[in-house]
Amino acid sequence: MNEIIQPRILKGFRDFLPQQETIRAGLIDTVTAVFRSFGFVPIDTPVLEYSDILLRKSDGETEKQVFRFKDNGERDVALRFDLTVPFARFVAEHREELPFPFKRYHVAKVWRGEKPQAGRYREFVQCDFDIVGSESVSSDFEILLMIKAAFEALEVPAVTVRLNHRGLFNAFLARIGIADKSEGVLRAIDKLGKIGREQTAALLTEVTGSAGTAEEILAYTAADDFTDFDATVSRLEDLAGGSPEAARGIGRLRELGRAAQDAAPGFFVLDPSITRGLDYYTGIVYETFLNDLPEIGSVCSGGRYDNLAGLYMKERLPGVGASIGLDRLVAALEKLAALPALLPGMDALIFCQDASLFAHYHRLAASLRARGMSVEVYPDPKPAGKQYQYAEKKGTRFAVLCTPEDAARGVVSVKNLANREIREHLTAEEMADIIA
Amino acid sequence: MNEIIQPRILKGFRDFLPQQETIRAGLIDTVTAVFRSFGFVPIDTPVLEYSDILLRKSDGETEKQVFRFKDNGERDVALRFDLTVPFARFVAEHREELPFPFKRYHVAKVWRGEKPQAGRYREFVQCDFDIVGSESVSSDFEILLMIKAAFEALEVPAVTVRLNHRGLFNAFLARIGIADKSEGVLRAIDKLGKIGREQTAALLTEVTGSAGTAEEILAYTAADDFTDFDATVSRLEDLAGGSPEAARGIGRLRELGRAAQDAAPGFFVLDPSITRGLDYYTGIVYETFLNDLPEIGSVCSGGRYDNLAGLYMKERLPGVGASIGLDRLVAALEKLAALPALLPGMDALIFCQDASLFAHYHRLAASLRARGMSVEVYPDPKPAGKQYQYAEKKGTRFAVLCTPEDAARGVVSVKNLANREIREHLTAEEMADIIA
Repeated sequence: MNEIIQPRILKGFRDFLPQQETIRAGLIDTVTAVFRSFGFVPIDTPVLEYSDILLRKSDGETEKQVFRFKDNGERDVALRFDLTVPFARFVAEHREELPFPFKRYHVAKVWRGEKPQAGRYREFVQCDFDIVGSESVSSDFEILLMIKAAFEALEVPAVTVRLNHRGLFNAFLARIGIADKSEGVLRAIDKLGKIGREQTAALLTEVTGSAGTAEEILAYTAADDFTDFDATVSRLEDLAGGSPEAARGIGRLRELGRAAQDAAPGFFVLDPSITRGLDYYTGIVYETFLNDLPEIGSVCSGGRYDNLAGLYMKERLPGVGASIGLDRLVAALEKLAALPALLPGMDALIFCQDASLFAHYHRLAASLRARGMSVEVYPDPKPAGKQYQYAEKKGTRFAVLCTPEDAARGVVSVKNLANREIREHLTAEEMADIIA
Repeated sequence: MNEIIQPRILKGFRDFLPQQETIRAGLIDTVTAVFRSFGFVPIDTPVLEYSDILLRKSDGETEKQVFRFKDNGERDVALRFDLTVPFARFVAEHREELPFPFKRYHVAKVWRGEKPQAGRYREFVQCDFDIVGSESVSSDFEILLMIKAAFEALEVPAVTVRLNHRGLFNAFLARIGIADKSEGVLRAIDKLGKIGREQTAALLTEVTGSAGTAEEILAYTAADDFTDFDATVSRLEDLAGGSPEAARGIGRLRELGRAAQDAAPGFFVLDPSITRGLDYYTGIVYETFLNDLPEIGSVCSGGRYDNLAGLYMKERLPGVGASIGLDRLVAALEKLAALPALLPGMDALIFCQDASLFAHYHRLAASLRARGMSVEVYPDPKPAGKQYQYAEKKGTRFAVLCTPEDAARGVVSVKNLANREIREHLTAEEMADIIA
């Protein structure tokens, strides 16, 4: 009757085995503790939303990738593809209930029907943190400090945050007379890291209709040697001209650059090629790279935006934020062999030497747990070898052995699984003292 | 250009504001710490799966409620409606990689297009924990002990776990000659709590074709006064007869009942009306009720099953588990005014008295965070009243004030926001000592 159906999952989706999931949960605990220490609070939003809410502002690229369908009530719905659009909707909907400036984090899954490839999945976890309701450089700086604090807490080795100013770049495009072509230019520059200077030049020539303009743009975005923040700012000032927008961008970059370099010399660098593609940013933008694995791409990106929720309310709401791509980060740390160690081991396994003693075994375990230890009870009277094997797989420190005779006398034996030393005829308290 | 679109969410879905989400996350932290102390490990599975994987065994009721659609690759996919079916698929797919007995927990969202009503949502969080690979009474007992430990750790007042044995009930149905009608009978008995004895009797008469049989069934499921586990077992033994299945059920119930009553007198009771409807259980089953709010229904249910993953593999895999309905539990605790308190307050808010000092303010904050405190920096030079208001909303203990003159002298003032006491001219270290 029961024909076996091949167990399988969808392309681009993944199971997380205990060790992987323990690592992921541990990383999430670590970053959320950092977020909380900065006064950020968690929120959650539905995984499904009305498609017109999610897709109103999106470009065609996003729309092609989104999981969208009609639900049983014929509503046009979609799975969220990021945490920013739901956040905009959330802030608009609850603006009367929130304290501003509002600082929230949201760690959750998002879905994109991207072509699966190394490190790219259709389901992945993002960790977003944003401050909305302040235009201050202090907020910009805070997000940068949080990126630093998060990666330090994660013990990720050798990280660089590359920052730039989108408003300044826009001022530059206006000065050279191609403000109307910014979309194509941004799309091209965003590919610079992947396709290289030559192909980007060709793309830019196509977009702007001029090889000279393409060269001008590439001169602007050229990576300096990053050692001198101030010198790069001065170069950009010359290129972007003296419009009010350019002046604002330069001022902000100088102020932020000074603070960032004081706080963490070398951790923050100014890289004019960072523009964040078609995103809605208007001020500073940044991407975060692992120095030993830059090719995996940015593991934490973000920037400042003028107006988060303009689609959903009239009040203008400026903000600044960032998003850690947790799954990409895990993949990177795996490659760098910099992931935290195995599952935390168990303190003890109570062996099953006689099935009828199960309640006694569980009492022994409870007495150890009451003292803060992690303890398992082996459920079946399997051969000792099998139970030792199980203990080893779970990284267990001590085996507790109790025969019916021991139980009658109220004693146990404890075996240290590291050095195989056995102590016999112990009371429950002696057992606990040894294992603690 | 930008027409405002009304921010709104789908019926049956919810946003979680910071306070609610903090509570939910705190409850999850608490139960997962309990699970880990018993040696359970976390896993995760995709939110979307092939529909034939998820729906193969489901009844029509489930199929009507599931969010199912064709993805962009024309695959027939669905959002998971529980965590058990994905777990079955997971175990079958990864059986070579898992240690058995395998004890996992999974805390995640599931979706059902149910008619939204009080305490019922279309998106909700479940906390599942199962042991697979053991048929022992020890495993049954462990799950019961974990339910107790979880509700104790959650500090949920006055809880009762009502347990029963599905195999024994099936033996009883066989003895009275209506084994072939068990589906309808189970469906009817599952409604007993909601629709009452009279209507259930009518339903059972319809299902079995006999008012006498209906009465026999209701005599079996009759709630005793729950004070005497052993007396109820004996009554069921008489009614269910002496078949091998009945004998197995009675033996298991006696063994488990003795251990459960020793471990927690009054916490576990035997209630023959608990059958868990059409679920796949074959052994003990249980539901968990809040004594002061039984009408909200079970907040933690589960049982023993013969074969978890029979649809996906040939090996038989028995197991036992339970699932905490976290969102229903939160709703119940809210009603009972037994929810944990507000957001944890912040230790300090560094006031913004001069915007140009932002980097200095962030340094002060960092020095406090380095000593383990949670600290915010107010980003804008708003009037003091506004900043005090913000501090109050975030439950902040101390305000740190620093004018340009203070900064030049390397000092700050600290105001205790509870008693309004101000201390001036403090060094950074003195500030930290006061706030710590």
